[in-house]
Amino acid sequence: MRVFIAGMDGYLGWSLAKYLALGGHEVGGADAFLRRSWVAEMGSDSAIPILPMPGRLDAFAAREGVRPRFWELDLRDSAAVRDAIAAFRPDAVVHLGECPSAPYSMMDADHASFVQANNLQTTFNLLYAMRDAAPDAHLVKLGTMGEYGYGHVDAPIPEGFVEVTMQGRRARIPYPREAGSWYHWSKVHGSYNVSFACRLWGLRATDIMQGIVFGSRFRDEDGALATRFDFDEAFGTVLNRFCCQAAIGEPLTLYGVGHQKRGFLPLGDSMRCLELALTNPPQRGEYRVFNQFAEIYDLTGLAHEVKAAGDRVGLSVTIEHIDNPRAEREVHGYEAAHDNLIALGYEPSLDLRGEIDRTLADLLPHAARIRRHRDALYPRVTWRGGADDTQPSVEALAFEA
Amino acid sequence: MRVFIAGMDGYLGWSLAKYLALGGHEVGGADAFLRRSWVAEMGSDSAIPILPMPGRLDAFAAREGVRPRFWELDLRDSAAVRDAIAAFRPDAVVHLGECPSAPYSMMDADHASFVQANNLQTTFNLLYAMRDAAPDAHLVKLGTMGEYGYGHVDAPIPEGFVEVTMQGRRARIPYPREAGSWYHWSKVHGSYNVSFACRLWGLRATDIMQGIVFGSRFRDEDGALATRFDFDEAFGTVLNRFCCQAAIGEPLTLYGVGHQKRGFLPLGDSMRCLELALTNPPQRGEYRVFNQFAEIYDLTGLAHEVKAAGDRVGLSVTIEHIDNPRAEREVHGYEAAHDNLIALGYEPSLDLRGEIDRTLADLLPHAARIRRHRDALYPRVTWRGGADDTQPSVEALAFEA
Repeated sequence: MRVFIAGMDGYLGWSLAKYLALGGHEVGGADAFLRRSWVAEMGSDSAIPILPMPGRLDAFAAREGVRPRFWELDLRDSAAVRDAIAAFRPDAVVHLGECPSAPYSMMDADHASFVQANNLQTTFNLLYAMRDAAPDAHLVKLGTMGEYGYGHVDAPIPEGFVEVTMQGRRARIPYPREAGSWYHWSKVHGSYNVSFACRLWGLRATDIMQGIVFGSRFRDEDGALATRFDFDEAFGTVLNRFCCQAAIGEPLTLYGVGHQKRGFLPLGDSMRCLELALTNPPQRGEYRVFNQFAEIYDLTGLAHEVKAAGDRVGLSVTIEHIDNPRAEREVHGYEAAHDNLIALGYEPSLDLRGEIDRTLADLLPHAARIRRHRDALYPRVTWRGGADDTQPSVEALAFEA
Repeated sequence: MRVFIAGMDGYLGWSLAKYLALGGHEVGGADAFLRRSWVAEMGSDSAIPILPMPGRLDAFAAREGVRPRFWELDLRDSAAVRDAIAAFRPDAVVHLGECPSAPYSMMDADHASFVQANNLQTTFNLLYAMRDAAPDAHLVKLGTMGEYGYGHVDAPIPEGFVEVTMQGRRARIPYPREAGSWYHWSKVHGSYNVSFACRLWGLRATDIMQGIVFGSRFRDEDGALATRFDFDEAFGTVLNRFCCQAAIGEPLTLYGVGHQKRGFLPLGDSMRCLELALTNPPQRGEYRVFNQFAEIYDLTGLAHEVKAAGDRVGLSVTIEHIDNPRAEREVHGYEAAHDNLIALGYEPSLDLRGEIDRTLADLLPHAARIRRHRDALYPRVTWRGGADDTQPSVEALAFEA
């Protein structure tokens, strides 16, 4: 099938371009390389060196004999997006062209506005381009498990919708969202917009509530094909950051008590799940939600796994607790369904140890690069910001049970 | 009390500035006059002539002896907003600085993005300014009854929250939103953002789910003090538009079958309700929702009221049904609670006939102005846009019962 990847230069975007092309799909994509500049703004860089897009495409074509099509364009430019979609005539569009960082969105008013406006605008431009030039195509929109929040201890979080009794009648409603940052709320807002577009224009969409992706690759390949690997406070996610900390002898930093629980999945699982969503599209007018993760882990447990992996290669790894820059529960129960993808054939990879070992091995040759940006590992952005100290406790972040 | 009005040049903003100043409150405000340019973009103008802001302020000062403070600034400029809030040190901020038009938001991808980004950014800038410079102040945020949608026939829409049984437990959750345009969704997104800011930073906010405001004034006053009165398809709301159509001998245009039901309130009731919200603030950290309307009317019934008002002054008024440019139910039940404001002392004005008579009398001297922009009365923006014809019916716009 023909798949258009919005945000093809990113961690998931470049991985998906390769994965789908290797799987025999015809791949096109677009990017304006904003992610590279956002990470630079955070004083950091990809731990693993990456080529500019032309070099990536050349290397892939030389190795595999196929060359994904690429449009260098800003997804906020509605006319450019429409023209690219009209030219490529995709069967599916994967929307990875959003700013994916909670801390980046919490820096100040301008970053809050930027993240929400960017994420909504790129989504609108894809929705309108599909309406006008590819109305039968399937939109795969990346959301996050963080849309649901983490205040739920009594019952598993379902996939998108929930049956309730409300005012004396049964109803199926969107599961109440409880995001914890402006970034996460931007994904909630986007989910509502996509859902409305499906109802209004008969588009079809899969909204992926994804867990935290980790790892440096989905198969063996040479360095010219590497995808980016971030570790800064804004664009590095927790397990990838732990691996970078281990690689350079810095302590693994847990935020606060450190028993936050999150859904995780290796990079290869993310690719496999996205391909399953793509090859099993919903009906016209249907908006469906998949929860996409392999397993739920406690962050303290993950830190100990990374420490053990470091021990196996002779590193001396320590674990430290630092003040939590976020407003979040640090000890909580957490369960979530992820049946939809499993019903389509997804077999979660549970080889956490092997994934961490491979990631660490990929990072060790680049320890000097990471060390040059060591400061970026530590949080400077705080959720409370300039607020005075009369805020309610984080318990108030959850809806009332 | 000191009240800062974001969007002080608008239909509600200028009215509120006068109303609160007459009530002995200290008023400040800001505007960049975007509403004037949006209406010009629609090929229209205020039916009743209005002065530029300096003239308005001069006329009010000459008549009443007090002069509201005014900052000409773009609410999308975070530093300017913060400086104004820091200088004025308000007890409350009323946020009327959003783009309030559903059709404007449905024109194309760029207008969709503009409306959502503008409305979220102006809200962020006020929230951050309050966090940093006025953390004890009360935000009164204007939302719309349209956030809830109109698919609910079995039970009254509550005020913001609802008790449900979900996954075997009782929970109080935000009432599921079902907006019908990108504009209405922008208000939903804003509601979630404001609610999160209250929980995160301990701000206090009242989110007003307002019905459709109508009428040309809240008291007798000379023309130099008039507030704007729009009738174009995007910024004119239905009852005000009917009055303009009657004033120039154009038919009153119902969209489709024409039995849409909506909450309405006269301009003076809107002012009274906002003052009640301001003088009865919530606690620090509290986010509360008021449904603000006087009465629910069927649009066909309103058309007949306007026709009768026209008959009383010798006009010959006809009623026509035209193709509905929107995707919405045209015949439906509708009930909604509005107890919170009534508990604070709000007595809904039910003098619909008198309000329409007064409005028509204010408009008749300006019939030539309205006639010059006659084309703007008729809808050109459609909800379906370029979509092909495989969309689901409007029944699909409601969540499943």
